[in-house]
Amino acid sequence: MVKVPNRRQDSRQGSDTPKLEDVAARAGVSTATVSRCLNNPAVVSDATRKKVLDAVRAMGYAPNFGAQALAARRTNTFGAIVPTMENAIFARGLQAFQEALRQQGITLLVASSSYSPELEEQQIHSLVARGADALLLIGHDRPPKCYSFLQKRQVPYVIAWVYDGDEGRVSIGFDNRKAMKSLADAVLDRGHRRLALITADRRNNDRARQRSQGLVDAMTARGLDPETLAVVETAYSIANGAQALEQLMHTTPRPTAVMCGNDVLAAGALTQARKMGLDVPGDLSITGFDDIEIAEIVTPALTTVHVPHRNMGKGAASLLFAMRAGEDPGPSVELEATVILRDSLGPAPDRAP
Amino acid sequence: MVKVPNRRQDSRQGSDTPKLEDVAARAGVSTATVSRCLNNPAVVSDATRKKVLDAVRAMGYAPNFGAQALAARRTNTFGAIVPTMENAIFARGLQAFQEALRQQGITLLVASSSYSPELEEQQIHSLVARGADALLLIGHDRPPKCYSFLQKRQVPYVIAWVYDGDEGRVSIGFDNRKAMKSLADAVLDRGHRRLALITADRRNNDRARQRSQGLVDAMTARGLDPETLAVVETAYSIANGAQALEQLMHTTPRPTAVMCGNDVLAAGALTQARKMGLDVPGDLSITGFDDIEIAEIVTPALTTVHVPHRNMGKGAASLLFAMRAGEDPGPSVELEATVILRDSLGPAPDRAP
Repeated sequence: MVKVPNRRQDSRQGSDTPKLEDVAARAGVSTATVSRCLNNPAVVSDATRKKVLDAVRAMGYAPNFGAQALAARRTNTFGAIVPTMENAIFARGLQAFQEALRQQGITLLVASSSYSPELEEQQIHSLVARGADALLLIGHDRPPKCYSFLQKRQVPYVIAWVYDGDEGRVSIGFDNRKAMKSLADAVLDRGHRRLALITADRRNNDRARQRSQGLVDAMTARGLDPETLAVVETAYSIANGAQALEQLMHTTPRPTAVMCGNDVLAAGALTQARKMGLDVPGDLSITGFDDIEIAEIVTPALTTVHVPHRNMGKGAASLLFAMRAGEDPGPSVELEATVILRDSLGPAPDRAP
Repeated sequence: MVKVPNRRQDSRQGSDTPKLEDVAARAGVSTATVSRCLNNPAVVSDATRKKVLDAVRAMGYAPNFGAQALAARRTNTFGAIVPTMENAIFARGLQAFQEALRQQGITLLVASSSYSPELEEQQIHSLVARGADALLLIGHDRPPKCYSFLQKRQVPYVIAWVYDGDEGRVSIGFDNRKAMKSLADAVLDRGHRRLALITADRRNNDRARQRSQGLVDAMTARGLDPETLAVVETAYSIANGAQALEQLMHTTPRPTAVMCGNDVLAAGALTQARKMGLDVPGDLSITGFDDIEIAEIVTPALTTVHVPHRNMGKGAASLLFAMRAGEDPGPSVELEATVILRDSLGPAPDRAP
């Protein structure tokens, strides 16, 4: 790893080392231009940047700075944009990502898009403008112009929380669809036939879409009609999970198992079931997804899918290190997500309520 | 709000408007120096900055840019550094902060210091180097050099999550000590005399220190010896809360009420009590602090202190807007924190276990 001192350290160089002014003179540009090259190369024309770089190399300017770091305008700051900082859905992954970055002296700056594509686009621009060397993004769903912007600005990025081999982008994650199918199989194995799904808005959320599809896959594989699946779409929150469960308990026929798009919704559903005097899992089974900490502290503990939070964060860091160094990061990485059986899932009740 | 176009827009100015070179000539400095004033005023001496600013004002340079924005090198990016992104302790406050910023077109970048003063210092430097216009920080505890750095770089900041009128810094928060005293009063009112505290490391955490002190205040006010208080210091996590509770249940005499420094520790303590076959609150009362969402979803729900998460976030944004505009933000803001009584607190058991 090339250590990149900041500009103030440059001024501590001995008098025999070339200065900004010397580089400017050799490159035939103003010192302001050299300075711009150091701070914001994207606003400098390619021709000018090349002139400055050539001068830097020729004169051995700021040997600690490294011509490559200059060209790459390395700031040792990485960015991550997650859909939410609430409910710790992405917190453990981010923590592992940050720990890996810190070992390389890299600072992590995080933005939270509130699941808004417009806000995420602004944040991508802002992080790049602020000099982020590389970005971690969640899921593939975003306008193509975001990808072309990153391509144009040559900012390496990794997509996490998803794995689907053929998207043509470097990703690290798990197969959301397959994982939800496995969980739905466990539900169906216990005799449940009237199922419901509480999911996030699936439009701009490939993870939610794939999880929903995995449930449909499991039903179809057993000859069940996916049209019988009751679905509520709502934003991830405990309160929304509670409200959705109440709504579902008033549908006829009443579901015997409610599968939730994540643990946050499931925790809300569980709380609401208790408020309504329903026994979980006696009257109703509830499942989550993610295996964040609340999955274990609610009563009964949630059956859920354990997502490889820490390995995604750590692995994303490794991929970005390689990309930033100009190396081939290799293919996208698929990690395992595993079904965790806990007490919120039980056999289907004998009698219809 | 003055809209601040970026520098590239300056180049679209008509030919009759003064240019960087003209300002440099008038100020008697190089264009590099003017440029530095625009990008990184803190590395320019006060005298030079004044010369450049005078020239800018006299010539009406970049009328859309605004001399004040120039002095403040506005990027429309604010930073926040929180001790942790896990467990949603700061998530709701950050969310409200971000919403207020977004209304002004400001992007929020967040860093998480893992309760490490060294890491926080790096992050302060990184956010300032990346051009953050203003910073939100949690609590007062940090090396003086962090404050002098921010002062020197003229980056406005607000301290949140604490209120203590006389620190000489603009803060918005609540009185952690008073809030914990109120909660401890509620515990003592129910006859508990053998108390325990599970707290975060109090060395670099003024909130934890003040909460601990509030409990001591309540004991002292009733003539109880604070030396009888059993204390476990541990990092905030559910697992650590569980472990600390187990440890406390093996002390003699066994506490009848365990007060936790936050809801995360309390959720862990509650889970562990259940594992040990203890009835909460029949055998043991447990309290939290913060009133984050898990406080309501655990069984029994946690008695805790409701912290004004959203109002702190929103209010911090208002203070920073004022400071960035060069206005007097007024005195520090004290918000209310209120005791929320839920089922995890009950009367002290009649018989000693």
